[in-house]
Amino acid sequence: MQTTRRRTVAVCGSGAADTPPAVLEVAFAVGRALVDAGFRVACGGLGGVMTAVCRGARASDRWTEGTTLGIVPTYDASTANPYVDVVVASGLGLARNVVLVASADAVVAIGGGSGTLAEIALAWQLGKPVVALDVGFGWSHELAGRAIDDRRPDTLRRASTPEAAVAAVRAALDAP
Amino acid sequence: MQTTRRRTVAVCGSGAADTPPAVLEVAFAVGRALVDAGFRVACGGLGGVMTAVCRGARASDRWTEGTTLGIVPTYDASTANPYVDVVVASGLGLARNVVLVASADAVVAIGGGSGTLAEIALAWQLGKPVVALDVGFGWSHELAGRAIDDRRPDTLRRASTPEAAVAAVRAALDAP
Amino acid sequence: MQTTRRRTVAVCGSGAADTPPAVLEVAFAVGRALVDAGFRVACGGLGGVMTAVCRGARASDRWTEGTTLGIVPTYDASTANPYVDVVVASGLGLARNVVLVASADAVVAIGGGSGTLAEIALAWQLGKPVVALDVGFGWSHELAGRAIDDRRPDTLRRASTPEAAVAAVRAALDAP
Amino acid sequence: MQTTRRRTVAVCGSGAADTPPAVLEVAFAVGRALVDAGFRVACGGLGGVMTAVCRGARASDRWTEGTTLGIVPTYDASTANPYVDVVVASGLGLARNVVLVASADAVVAIGGGSGTLAEIALAWQLGKPVVALDVGFGWSHELAGRAIDDRRPDTLRRASTPEAAVAAVRAALDAP
Repeated sequence: MQTTRRRTVAVCGSGAADTPPAVLEVAFAVGRALVDAGFRVACGGLGGVMTAVCRGARASDRWTEGTTLGIVPTYDASTANPYVDVVVASGLGLARNVVLVASADAVVAIGGGSGTLAEIALAWQLGKPVVALDVGFGWSHELAGRAIDDRRPDTLRRASTPEAAVAAVRAALDAP
Repeated sequence: MQTTRRRTVAVCGSGAADTPPAVLEVAFAVGRALVDAGFRVACGGLGGVMTAVCRGARASDRWTEGTTLGIVPTYDASTANPYVDVVVASGLGLARNVVLVASADAVVAIGGGSGTLAEIALAWQLGKPVVALDVGFGWSHELAGRAIDDRRPDTLRRASTPEAAVAAVRAALDAP
Repeated sequence: MQTTRRRTVAVCGSGAADTPPAVLEVAFAVGRALVDAGFRVACGGLGGVMTAVCRGARASDRWTEGTTLGIVPTYDASTANPYVDVVVASGLGLARNVVLVASADAVVAIGGGSGTLAEIALAWQLGKPVVALDVGFGWSHELAGRAIDDRRPDTLRRASTPEAAVAAVRAALDAP
Repeated sequence: MQTTRRRTVAVCGSGAADTPPAVLEVAFAVGRALVDAGFRVACGGLGGVMTAVCRGARASDRWTEGTTLGIVPTYDASTANPYVDVVVASGLGLARNVVLVASADAVVAIGGGSGTLAEIALAWQLGKPVVALDVGFGWSHELAGRAIDDRRPDTLRRASTPEAAVAAVRAALDAP
């Protein structure tokens, strides 16, 4: 019987097909580094940053089947990108984003528009550590280092590289 | 048979018991002015700004039973403030915020922390007009006049008074 | 300030366009009788029995705007039938059925297939009184007078007429 | 890159602590046999049949981390039984049951009360093959071999043993 369940990190970012290649490279590196560090990787299961993160997770030497979790908005599991191992076909529309961040021990945001902003705000409300990867634009850029409101003493942890993001996740989860 | 259904405006803001009285007065005035203008008023059904908005709605001469809608997070309808006419006891937790903004024709944000920020972001994603009442602090203050991302050509409409907020809602909904 | 909120009864039944006219007549009569008795009427907001119930509610002399609540599965409020006053555009798919029964003080089932069966079971789980209108077929027919499981001491209350159904709702809600 | 995602089977049954040992043994055997056959096993993540199924899955020689998925009703992942690998902390209350069956390729019901009945009905609505393990009582007993309504040409597949249940799942999923 396991005594410590594998921890899960949700990665949030744009699902747009025209996401800049540099951002997708960062997302790929985050996915791989998270799995290298022993985490499960969760996301919204679709394209753009979500696909890149799952691809990165699959590229880790520590990837095993079941490492990537994708919670998609519809009942159609085939909408999940092919690098998702575990598909939750929620049928909940945007409410799936609440389920995603709620199921994570920590959240990493990469750039992002309104969807990512909602996920950052929800994660904050739910008391999850949030790491904002500063890719130079988007809500992770704008909010890095800030507090969302005063209900928590901490801030969104700013990270400049995928490695720093994973280190920030570990630091947050290992804090007393 | 009705041909045009009554339009609904969701009002978002802090549920905290220590919300400043000046903000509650603004929320009350928004609730009343929305009902004066013929709208149904929806909110998260709980305290703080939510109670003030519903109280204001009840104070309008045009209030009738059924004018205020409160979507609460638990299955306990008795958590709704006493000025809510129609209680949706969602049991959905924070996901009820998605249902709230999705059920509105437009959204008015008043101050607010992470919950209001999530609602603003979700409303933006869902294509709803968003009016940000600038009460000098909170996310409605910070985001008034801005776009959340580039998926829409518009911005959060800034309003300085309750009357201006209702006028902005009407302008947004009556735009071609 | 109201001290006793208006009670809400959810009515469940088939949304199919080919629902037998006799069943639609029963649904219409249930909707009207519930509003005559002072209740708000809630349903899934779409066609078939749902439309008939809302039409009936509108036909009551005691109908006022806001009396009928429809919780539809998508974000498209225009899918609600025209007799729904308050539309909740949930975007939750089938999960909207949970929200529907949870928001009701009691549930009336009229015939029905798998959707109605799920609503009966969910209402039972949530501790709501359930009245099964025996229209000669469907799950309300099959389960009338039965218990769903042993977590509750009562049964689905069998009713043979719309009037008896409303009387059963009142008896259940007024029981000590 | 995987071309065929691992298929998931949801197992539904009572979460009660006083579930008869014989039923828990059946659930354990179903969990193990499903993983032996290559499936991922999903459930509501809590006790009773849910714990037994996950324990059984863990007992399979083919179990690897990530094989068991538990979708719990609250935001508290620690409520998941210790044999759940992947926890979705949905916060959705009973609506999590919709997400559970929607995320499965097929559903196996074992005994069960109102919760299981709702899951059977929802699975039927969503077009999922449903196998009813006849353990002599509960809704899987009562509905085995029946259709829930006429929207589908098939019935709940009756199985008398765990092995037969898994064979029925395979037959259903491999049918043309």
